[in-house]
Amino acid sequence: MAEQKKMVEEITSMDVDFAKWYTDVVKKAELCEYTSVKGCMVLRPYGYAIWENIQRIMDNMFKETGHENVCMPMFIPESLLQKEKDHVEGFAPEVAWVTHGGNEELEERLCVRPTSETLFCEHYKSIVHSYRDLPKLYNQWVSVVRWEKTTRPFLRTREFWWQEGHTIHATAEEAREETIRMLNVYADFCENVLAIPVVKGVKTEKERFAGAEDTYTIEALMHDGKALQSGTSHYFGDGFAKAFGIQFQDKDNQLKYPYQTSWGTTTRLIGAIIMTHGDDNGLVLPPKVAPIQLVVIPVASHKAGVTETAQAIYARLNKICRAKIDNSDNSPGWKYAEYEMKGVPLRLEIGPRDIENNQCVIVRRDTREKYFVSLDELEAKVPELLDAVHNGMYEKALARRTEMTYTAHNFEEMKDIADNKPGFIKAMWCGDRACEDKLKEEIGVTSRCIPFEQETISDVCVCCGKKADKMLYWGKAY
Amino acid sequence: MAEQKKMVEEITSMDVDFAKWYTDVVKKAELCEYTSVKGCMVLRPYGYAIWENIQRIMDNMFKETGHENVCMPMFIPESLLQKEKDHVEGFAPEVAWVTHGGNEELEERLCVRPTSETLFCEHYKSIVHSYRDLPKLYNQWVSVVRWEKTTRPFLRTREFWWQEGHTIHATAEEAREETIRMLNVYADFCENVLAIPVVKGVKTEKERFAGAEDTYTIEALMHDGKALQSGTSHYFGDGFAKAFGIQFQDKDNQLKYPYQTSWGTTTRLIGAIIMTHGDDNGLVLPPKVAPIQLVVIPVASHKAGVTETAQAIYARLNKICRAKIDNSDNSPGWKYAEYEMKGVPLRLEIGPRDIENNQCVIVRRDTREKYFVSLDELEAKVPELLDAVHNGMYEKALARRTEMTYTAHNFEEMKDIADNKPGFIKAMWCGDRACEDKLKEEIGVTSRCIPFEQETISDVCVCCGKKADKMLYWGKAY
Repeated sequence: MAEQKKMVEEITSMDVDFAKWYTDVVKKAELCEYTSVKGCMVLRPYGYAIWENIQRIMDNMFKETGHENVCMPMFIPESLLQKEKDHVEGFAPEVAWVTHGGNEELEERLCVRPTSETLFCEHYKSIVHSYRDLPKLYNQWVSVVRWEKTTRPFLRTREFWWQEGHTIHATAEEAREETIRMLNVYADFCENVLAIPVVKGVKTEKERFAGAEDTYTIEALMHDGKALQSGTSHYFGDGFAKAFGIQFQDKDNQLKYPYQTSWGTTTRLIGAIIMTHGDDNGLVLPPKVAPIQLVVIPVASHKAGVTETAQAIYARLNKICRAKIDNSDNSPGWKYAEYEMKGVPLRLEIGPRDIENNQCVIVRRDTREKYFVSLDELEAKVPELLDAVHNGMYEKALARRTEMTYTAHNFEEMKDIADNKPGFIKAMWCGDRACEDKLKEEIGVTSRCIPFEQETISDVCVCCGKKADKMLYWGKAY
Repeated sequence: MAEQKKMVEEITSMDVDFAKWYTDVVKKAELCEYTSVKGCMVLRPYGYAIWENIQRIMDNMFKETGHENVCMPMFIPESLLQKEKDHVEGFAPEVAWVTHGGNEELEERLCVRPTSETLFCEHYKSIVHSYRDLPKLYNQWVSVVRWEKTTRPFLRTREFWWQEGHTIHATAEEAREETIRMLNVYADFCENVLAIPVVKGVKTEKERFAGAEDTYTIEALMHDGKALQSGTSHYFGDGFAKAFGIQFQDKDNQLKYPYQTSWGTTTRLIGAIIMTHGDDNGLVLPPKVAPIQLVVIPVASHKAGVTETAQAIYARLNKICRAKIDNSDNSPGWKYAEYEMKGVPLRLEIGPRDIENNQCVIVRRDTREKYFVSLDELEAKVPELLDAVHNGMYEKALARRTEMTYTAHNFEEMKDIADNKPGFIKAMWCGDRACEDKLKEEIGVTSRCIPFEQETISDVCVCCGKKADKMLYWGKAY
C-alpha cells in the first residue's frame, strides 16, 4: 500500500502562516523547486505550463499592438552598462559578473543582463538612422539575473523569466503613448486573463526605474493585504539616446535624438495568481491560463460502462478545452484533493447512477458549487462554467480589495491602519520626498502609485499637513 | 531620392566566396547582427520569426511524443559540473565563469550552462524515487554558452539558442528507444519541415558527446560540400545516475539506477536552411517556417482598382497562409529583389491587365517559375504551390547531395576526392581510432557517422586495409 499511492498532504492554513502556506502551495502543486544555486529555481512542468499559457496569450496581445520579437545576448560588457549614469547606479550592485571564459581571464568583465536597455540601445544605434527606420517596437522573452539577498519562489528570485519590451520613436508624444498603451495591455491581461484586479498609476520619483523619466505600474492586492507590483512601463525620454549617441535624420533633414520606452512583466505573475486566488485547499487557477481546465474523474469505475463513458466525455471535452482524465487507481477522494491542490477550475465526476440519468456532476474549484449537467449539453455548459469561474474569481478578488482598501486623513490614522489593517491605504501627498521617506521609516508603508483615477480625500498631505493635491495608494509590498 | 528608398545591394556570389556569400545573406536578409560581445549575436525580428516557427512546430512534435517543457536555472556550481568525469573534461575548457555577485566574490564559481545534464540530474535526484515516478520526459528551450575561439553567425556562436531534451527511464531498453525516437523526430523535422535531407547514424567513439555511451546524429550536406551536424541524440546508460546517486525503487523492491538520454537542436538549423537552399539572390526559405509565405505586390498601383484588388487578395490569402502586402512607394523591381533576398516562397504580382483578365501572376522563389492563376482559384492554388515549393526544394537538395556523395575504396582515392570534390565520402572503416585520426590529419576529413543504412563498399578499411565491416560517411564539416 505504501507504494501504491502518494498521499495528498495537508498544507499550512493561510490564516496561520501566510508565508508558509505560500511555499507549501508552490511545492505541493509542483510549480517549482529549489536548486543548489541559492535563489535559482527549476520551473517544473505544471508551473512552466502556466508560464507558457501566459506567454502565448500575452505575446498575441503584443503582436496585435504591432510588436516584433527579437533576442539579445545575455551578456553586457561593463563599459556598456556604465553608459547611462542612473541606470548603472541602479543595477551594478546586484549583477552577476562573468570574469573568465574557459581558463582565460576576460579583458573586460561581462555582467549577465539584469535588464537589457543597454543592449537594445547599442543595437538601435546600429540600425536606426532615418525617420523611416522608426518606430521599432521590439520585445523579448528571456531570463534575467539580479543578485538579490533574500529570495522567494516566483516573487523574488536571482534568475527570473520575463518579457521586456523596448521601443524607440521619433517623437516624445509617440513614446508616451506607447508607455501608456502597454500599461493598459498589462492591466487588460491581469484583469481579463488572470482575473486579478489592478490599480493603474504612475510611480513617485523615488520608486522610478533606474534611468526612467516616468515609471507606470499596475499594483495588485494579495490575500494577506500586501501589494504586489505586477507590471511596469517606463518612459525614458531621450536620455538613453543621448547617453548612447543614437540619432536619426528626421523629415526636416535635422539630426535628432529618438525617444524610448521599456516595459516588463515576469514569472512573478504566477506568484500573484497564487496569492490572489489560492485558498487552504491549494491553488485556484484562472481558467485562461490553467494547464488543465477540466479533469474527468470516473467514480466506481469497475462498474460496467463507467470507464467507457468517462473516456468518451473526455474525448468530447478535450476538443473544446484543455481536458484531462484521471484513470489511475487512486480513490476519487484522493483525486478530488489532488486536483483541488493543483487549482483545476472544473472537476467532472461521472458514476453509474449519473450514467443512468444521462448526466454528470461538475464542481467549480473556486466556489465548490456543484452542477448537474446533462450529457447532451456538455459542449454548451463547460465553456459557460469556465467563464463563470473566471468572472467569479475576478469579482471575489475585487470585493476583497475594496474591503481591504482604507482611507487615511492624517499621520495617526495612517499609522493605526498600517499597524492593524492589512491592505491598501489611500492618502494625500504633498509631493515631498521627505514625507515619503518618513512614512516608510515610521509606518512601514511605501507609495505604490499615484493612480490615474484620482479622488480628493482632503487637501493636505497625510504626513506633513501641508497643501497636497495628489492622492496615492500606499501599502506594504512584496 | 537618397532617403526615399534603400537600395537592394548586391551580395557576393556563392561560387566566388561561399563564406562571404553566407555572411552577406545573413546581414542583408536582416537575420542577425553582431554586438560588442565577441561571438554573441542579436536575433533580429526576421531571424527570430524563423526560430519561432521552428520552435512552434518542433515543440508540437515533442508534445505529441509525450514530452513536457520545464526550465532549469542558467547557472551550474563548479562542484556540480565536476560530478561526471568525462562530462566536465569535455565542457570545462569552454565555459563562462561567474565569480562575483554584485560587489561580493562568490564562495563557489558558477558556470553559465554549456548544456544542462548536471542540472537535470540534480533535479531528478530530488524528484525520482520510485518506478512510479518514471519516465520523466522533459525538454527546455533556452540559450547556452560555450566560449568558442572562432565564431560564425548561427553556425558557431558563444551564446546560442536551442532545445535540450533530458529523459530518465527505468530500463536501458526504454532509454535506447527514446534516443532513437527523438533522432527520428529530428530527421522528420529536417526533411518534412525544413526540406533538408539528412543522413541518420551513430557517431564513432571519438565524436561522441562528453559522458555519452552512444551519440546519434543527423548530418546534412551544405551547398559548398561541407557537412553540418544538425541534431544529436545521446544515450547515457546509467553513468550519470551513478555519478549523481540517482536511484529508484523498482517493482521488485530493489533499488536501481535509472537510464538517461539527452537530445538537442539549435539555431544552427537556420544556418542549415541558408546553406542548403540559398542562392545568389539570397535566402530561399522552406514554406513551413517562412515568416512570410506569400507577398502581394501591386504593379502600376496608381491605376484604378489595383490597390483595392491587391488589398482584397491579401485579405483573402492572409486567412490561409502567412501573407504580406507591400504598398510602399518602392518600385516593383526593387520589391522583387527585396523579397527574393528574404527568401519569401511565393510572390504574387497584380496589375491592371491582370485585373482585366481576372488573374494574377505567382512566382516561385525556388525555381522562379511563373504561374498565371485565376483570381477565383487562389485559395486552392496557393497551398498547392507552397507544397510544390517545399517538395521542389527537398528534391533539389537531395539530388545535389546524391551528386556530391562519393565512394572511396582506398587511401589514395579518398585523398583525391577530399582534395578535389567537396561532398560526403562513403568509405569502410576497421573501427580503429588510429585510422580515424590519420584520415583527419592527412586528408582533413572527419567521420560524420556510421549510417543506419549500411552498404558494403569493400571488406577492408579505407585507411589501413585491414578487415572492415562498417561503412561510414566522412567529410569536411562546419
